[in-house]
Amino acid sequence: MLLALLFVTGNFPPDVAQKLVGEALTSGIAYARLEELTDTIGPRLSGSAGAEAAVQWALKKLQQDGLAAHLEPVKVPHWVRGEESGEVLPSPGVAGYRLALTALGNSVGGSASAEVVEARSLAEAASLGAAARGKIVFFNHTMSAPEDYGKFIEMRTRGPSAAARVGAVAMLMRSLATGSLRSPHTGMTSYDPDAPRIPGAAISTEDADLLHRLLRRGPVRVRLSLGCRMLPDADSANVVADVRGREKPEEVVLIGAHLDSWDLAQGANDDGAGVAMVMEAGRVIAALPQHPRRTVRVVLFMNEENGLAGGKGYAAAHQGELGRHVAALEADSGAGPPLAVRLRSGDGGSSMLAPWLAPLASLGIELGEGDASGADLSPLDPSGVPLFAVHPDVTHYFDIHHSAADTFDKIDPGNLARNAAAIAVVAYALAEMPGTLPRPAPKPSHDKQEVTRPAAH
Amino acid sequence: MLLALLFVTGNFPPDVAQKLVGEALTSGIAYARLEELTDTIGPRLSGSAGAEAAVQWALKKLQQDGLAAHLEPVKVPHWVRGEESGEVLPSPGVAGYRLALTALGNSVGGSASAEVVEARSLAEAASLGAAARGKIVFFNHTMSAPEDYGKFIEMRTRGPSAAARVGAVAMLMRSLATGSLRSPHTGMTSYDPDAPRIPGAAISTEDADLLHRLLRRGPVRVRLSLGCRMLPDADSANVVADVRGREKPEEVVLIGAHLDSWDLAQGANDDGAGVAMVMEAGRVIAALPQHPRRTVRVVLFMNEENGLAGGKGYAAAHQGELGRHVAALEADSGAGPPLAVRLRSGDGGSSMLAPWLAPLASLGIELGEGDASGADLSPLDPSGVPLFAVHPDVTHYFDIHHSAADTFDKIDPGNLARNAAAIAVVAYALAEMPGTLPRPAPKPSHDKQEVTRPAAH
Repeated sequence: MLLALLFVTGNFPPDVAQKLVGEALTSGIAYARLEELTDTIGPRLSGSAGAEAAVQWALKKLQQDGLAAHLEPVKVPHWVRGEESGEVLPSPGVAGYRLALTALGNSVGGSASAEVVEARSLAEAASLGAAARGKIVFFNHTMSAPEDYGKFIEMRTRGPSAAARVGAVAMLMRSLATGSLRSPHTGMTSYDPDAPRIPGAAISTEDADLLHRLLRRGPVRVRLSLGCRMLPDADSANVVADVRGREKPEEVVLIGAHLDSWDLAQGANDDGAGVAMVMEAGRVIAALPQHPRRTVRVVLFMNEENGLAGGKGYAAAHQGELGRHVAALEADSGAGPPLAVRLRSGDGGSSMLAPWLAPLASLGIELGEGDASGADLSPLDPSGVPLFAVHPDVTHYFDIHHSAADTFDKIDPGNLARNAAAIAVVAYALAEMPGTLPRPAPKPSHDKQEVTRPAAH
Repeated sequence: MLLALLFVTGNFPPDVAQKLVGEALTSGIAYARLEELTDTIGPRLSGSAGAEAAVQWALKKLQQDGLAAHLEPVKVPHWVRGEESGEVLPSPGVAGYRLALTALGNSVGGSASAEVVEARSLAEAASLGAAARGKIVFFNHTMSAPEDYGKFIEMRTRGPSAAARVGAVAMLMRSLATGSLRSPHTGMTSYDPDAPRIPGAAISTEDADLLHRLLRRGPVRVRLSLGCRMLPDADSANVVADVRGREKPEEVVLIGAHLDSWDLAQGANDDGAGVAMVMEAGRVIAALPQHPRRTVRVVLFMNEENGLAGGKGYAAAHQGELGRHVAALEADSGAGPPLAVRLRSGDGGSSMLAPWLAPLASLGIELGEGDASGADLSPLDPSGVPLFAVHPDVTHYFDIHHSAADTFDKIDPGNLARNAAAIAVVAYALAEMPGTLPRPAPKPSHDKQEVTRPAAH
């Protein structure tokens, strides 16, 4: 049975496994590059000078690594934060208090000074009716674990419009976070066409607890001022780099990550780490004596955080060849210890792939259950591209996600290298195995993946 | 032998133990008061409106509790923070980057824009000589556990003068912290008379790591701007409240905490928690059908954080009765689970006290080794006042200490109540036992206790 299976599927060439894993785990290059990206370029919000510098930096590195690299232009939103502040206003019996606050990405700027009303869901906000008129709606929730992110993210993406629809003048929300030392967490919001555009901001979990307690004592007034604004769309680019397949170059295994980050910090974990991983995976595959059968393509997407222009742009530009995209990965779940390979394919994909993952068994990584999606890959869903993922431990992912604490020091070099090695092995396997994965049923829409993946964007 | 011991020392009346512990663990009053203090008054830096409000609040509560409470005036420094900012300046190959920074307490304000030079100790700063002239000296260190605080605190208290002495224009330091999400930790600095007064600020541990890494790449320039300034001394007060002893009212067991806090947050752990504990201990002792033999005195000191005016003022005002202060405690190590009672007395004190701690055994608290000092008690040292402490677990104390994250949500109500109960039991024991503790040898100076206690100020 095993022999029969190997006859059909082949197996991983041991000398290649040794080269890929050995190089990724000893080169130190992924870690050194992440340091260079985060320390010398820093924050990379779409449209910023940092984002542009990162594009040029990545292009040059990938070319140095021997990949056929080029830029693919995309227009991106250009949102800037400006100065921002907020405070609980003094009232009889309650002193004023500065809030730890940060604007939601893409929020309109503006000021408000109004009474606060708390809501635990979009539905509860809607039910406030006239009670919310002229007030600041404060969305509170009970996020305590990474898997809660998907439950509450609609407060961030749709909260300002939900609040505006019942007459609120501004919206605050408890940060989507699993840890906090008074650190607010930003993230994209968007506006429905049918509602006024009001400012939206996140406050630290500590400040959310405070508002909740103060509201038990009586009316609470808050002043907030957001200096953010949306500038005209900017020119930017995805970075696309191929390790050209030796037999079937038109068949593509895509390994991607997003080069943009939020502006509050270095974006080391989100998603500098993913960028460093897929660049390293591409580098070690390109350095093999012989390329795999199919093309391995490194794609560094722009604007995952606040628009998905890069993901959409890639799908549009490559529409004609998506049928020959045999698999795609986006590394965007941080750099925790890699735990498992995940797969979304048609029936039988797992049993094809599993034997090819033998080189990862010693690293404790096996094929497991779970989500293999990535926000930038969601535009590929209508084409039925099989997805794969190397899933890291995300226990602490949301402690720093989208906050000022997403800095290089949070990255463990050994875990970063193990993720890069695992991505290299799986990408090579998919590019070298005799057959291609059965394709999943095409999905008509990507909206759900964009907003509910627990460990991404 | 046991009977003989009990004959000499007496033991704890079981009905009293039941009342004290039962009430402290079920009333919820310490926690409710801490919420009121932190949420409705908030930060309480000496000289601020918050500090004054806290004094009036505490006086009223202690009077409501039936204690004979009054204010004892002290003049305190009045330092205000103002706006503050800092950044790594852009240079060839390195983008600019905003620093998470906060002025050290009592620092002069000012601006600087200069190259950074790193030092690992005051001695290393001194050895820089001309290499530091016109630069910003950046003190870096390796604090990773609470017990490291005493090792590195001289960087904060003496760093600006050490840097100024070699010609530096400003001083930065790595926050004294065991945890960080980009959160700088303030704390008092002071200036030597023989050195120019230059601005001093703490940066988050993440930013310290960044500066260290960038300095390996080449020269690093930083701009900082501190809006802080020292105003004329302000009028404030210690709050002093007695449960008058039924037999020897002139003999005093002092249980204290400090009412002032830093300005960055609510000061819940430092030292709102201590305030709530000793107020509750005083309350439950005052509520007993019969007061203990000696006076139990609650003292809420003002200005522990940046001057010790309250501690010094108390010692001066009560100089004539310090010989009859039979023991003193300052609760200023946060509200972690209480682990042990500690004692500093003359020989034989432990064997006198131990049998009286029987009511605490069920709470897992026994007489243990370790430091019993408190900053506000250090002026009592020359009078040989025995010191005692209820020592909580301080593992996470320095995660939030002196930072914006020292907020009410960090306090566990059960631990707070257990600390209050333990303080009540020990204070009652010392006030009721037939004899008084042997006095330790008087200490001529309190400087050492002020700066090296790991879990306080």
